[in-house]
Amino acid sequence: MTKEDLPMYAVIMAGGSGTRLWPRSRKQKPKQLLDIVSNKTMIQETVERLEPLVDGYHTIVVVGDIHFKEIDQQLALVPTENIIIEPEGKNTAPCIGLAAVHIRAREKDAVMVVLPSDHLVRNDGRFRKTISAAAEVAKRANCLVTIGIEPSVPETGYGYIQVGEKVEEVDGEDVYKTVAFTEKPVLAMAKKFLKSGDYLWNSGMFVWTVDAILEEIKFLLPDLYEGLTKIEAAIGKKNEKKVIEEVYRSLQPESIDYGILEKAKNVHLLKGNFGWNDIGSWAAMEQFWPKDKDGNFLDAEVVSIESTGNIIHSTKKLVAVIGLKNIVIIETDDALLVCPKERAPEVRRVVEELKKRGLDAYL
Amino acid sequence: MTKEDLPMYAVIMAGGSGTRLWPRSRKQKPKQLLDIVSNKTMIQETVERLEPLVDGYHTIVVVGDIHFKEIDQQLALVPTENIIIEPEGKNTAPCIGLAAVHIRAREKDAVMVVLPSDHLVRNDGRFRKTISAAAEVAKRANCLVTIGIEPSVPETGYGYIQVGEKVEEVDGEDVYKTVAFTEKPVLAMAKKFLKSGDYLWNSGMFVWTVDAILEEIKFLLPDLYEGLTKIEAAIGKKNEKKVIEEVYRSLQPESIDYGILEKAKNVHLLKGNFGWNDIGSWAAMEQFWPKDKDGNFLDAEVVSIESTGNIIHSTKKLVAVIGLKNIVIIETDDALLVCPKERAPEVRRVVEELKKRGLDAYL
Repeated sequence: MTKEDLPMYAVIMAGGSGTRLWPRSRKQKPKQLLDIVSNKTMIQETVERLEPLVDGYHTIVVVGDIHFKEIDQQLALVPTENIIIEPEGKNTAPCIGLAAVHIRAREKDAVMVVLPSDHLVRNDGRFRKTISAAAEVAKRANCLVTIGIEPSVPETGYGYIQVGEKVEEVDGEDVYKTVAFTEKPVLAMAKKFLKSGDYLWNSGMFVWTVDAILEEIKFLLPDLYEGLTKIEAAIGKKNEKKVIEEVYRSLQPESIDYGILEKAKNVHLLKGNFGWNDIGSWAAMEQFWPKDKDGNFLDAEVVSIESTGNIIHSTKKLVAVIGLKNIVIIETDDALLVCPKERAPEVRRVVEELKKRGLDAYL
Repeated sequence: MTKEDLPMYAVIMAGGSGTRLWPRSRKQKPKQLLDIVSNKTMIQETVERLEPLVDGYHTIVVVGDIHFKEIDQQLALVPTENIIIEPEGKNTAPCIGLAAVHIRAREKDAVMVVLPSDHLVRNDGRFRKTISAAAEVAKRANCLVTIGIEPSVPETGYGYIQVGEKVEEVDGEDVYKTVAFTEKPVLAMAKKFLKSGDYLWNSGMFVWTVDAILEEIKFLLPDLYEGLTKIEAAIGKKNEKKVIEEVYRSLQPESIDYGILEKAKNVHLLKGNFGWNDIGSWAAMEQFWPKDKDGNFLDAEVVSIESTGNIIHSTKKLVAVIGLKNIVIIETDDALLVCPKERAPEVRRVVEELKKRGLDAYL
């Protein structure tokens, strides 16, 4: 089989237990399982968006134990055996490695498209075009390919990639070398990055061959590789579950960015120009919910008097606001969040406080 | 019977359909029927507060048709026949006149203590002492007695009474003449009133004999008096309900302040020093709900992060706030109000908007 004929797999990382959209996102129902932007859940959108390129039989979903059942139900297109349980969250490197050896257990080699399960893409066609081109690059150059996003604000919550020279054009998409990866920067540095024009956001979307990523893991994270080979040897055997459980729990947590991409020699980049948004806080809803004449973003029945720029969600209640400015109001069956828009990302602190107080029902 | 032996009646005006505490106060459940400050409703508190002075058999409650049943149930102390239905809201003068002729139908004359049903008094003992003294004055001087409240802020929502010279002291309470009554003033005038020290708030609490008030009505509001005599003649007769219905609906709406007190010659005043509050908006709850270490007034389970001076009520939900300042959050089973504290009095505008939109379920 030549590289050009390699089958394409999708790996959807769905282990996240996102707290950033509390009170809607919960331990049992993180962001990827919610229908926030459309009437489909984020993970359904993610799988269906890719479907014209990768069918359900070639889609691997890595999930936490507590979400297995719901994700299996939500993803009609994906066979149950493609939903792999991660016994414990170990960050992205072990998660991607686990998926890679599962694919290698089926195919000698394949291209794998690694995607978060809870990001939003507005232009599905553009997205697939970029991913297809990235897959071509990954196959031909046997390199790691990452998708970078043009930054619009000096966001400190993302990693940044310094873009190098353009190396080629594939199917109309420019392919670049990468110079450096930077973890979440402080604000001053994020501003510098934004101004320079040389930096892109690390979207957490990657394309590479199973062969290429496992080679890099073997070289850069040998302990992880050793664990993965043990797991690989057990796949399909009677003791598979037990081995995965034991080995995976013993692995060191590591992000794919820090563990591999920052250190690997041959990382290429394509620019993702398809309306990407990771919906990192309720403030992002400004882009998705209908806006009234006063600039309020509403997903509720609202009586608004002299109020502007608010973000309001409630499925069952009438919400009345008077003289309110730039406030987020999110109401669920058992909880209510009210905070200024610019403090919406701090909702994690509420979740921490709930844990501290033992109010587990609200987690 | 000498004036000193006159029996004492209480007249509780409970016809209000207060919208100022929306979304808790509703058409079907106005403020007087709510337990906002204690575990008793405002009207229960009002009746029980007076009980050591006036028993239930001498307590007349004037109510709107739609509240009759609930008020009858709430007031175990008051016989059903003492609950008089006002066929239509006609402001305070017809309401007080209606009660007066009902009392005159039972007794040749009596002292009547007129009280709103939805005001709060914190010192019940002081309150009864003031009312007793006022009743003494009303009996001896056959005058109208009003209870004035020392203003603490330049409130524009109340009427003001200019206090005249002190005329006597009765049971340790100073009795004053009144100089003038002023309807709700503009802010500049309210500030002047407050600064002068000569003005008191009109609390809407009055004491007088049935004889005195009906004489004043006969003189100052002859049409109302004529209607009232027709009603009086029908009391206890077969056509009572029909006559009240017809006559009352034909009456001109009039406030007792404007119609009688501003024009009557012989109005005396006692100062009410018993912790009065009419709970005119949610902002008043600062005085009644427990305060946390950050100055939030809470009647709910709350997670508060860097938030100060908020007023929060919810019976069933956890409420989380982050970086929120001086905001009112009131949550009920079907509605949610969020507004800055200083705009809480404008909640009437929400109710108007609901009417306009035909959202009657929320009224």
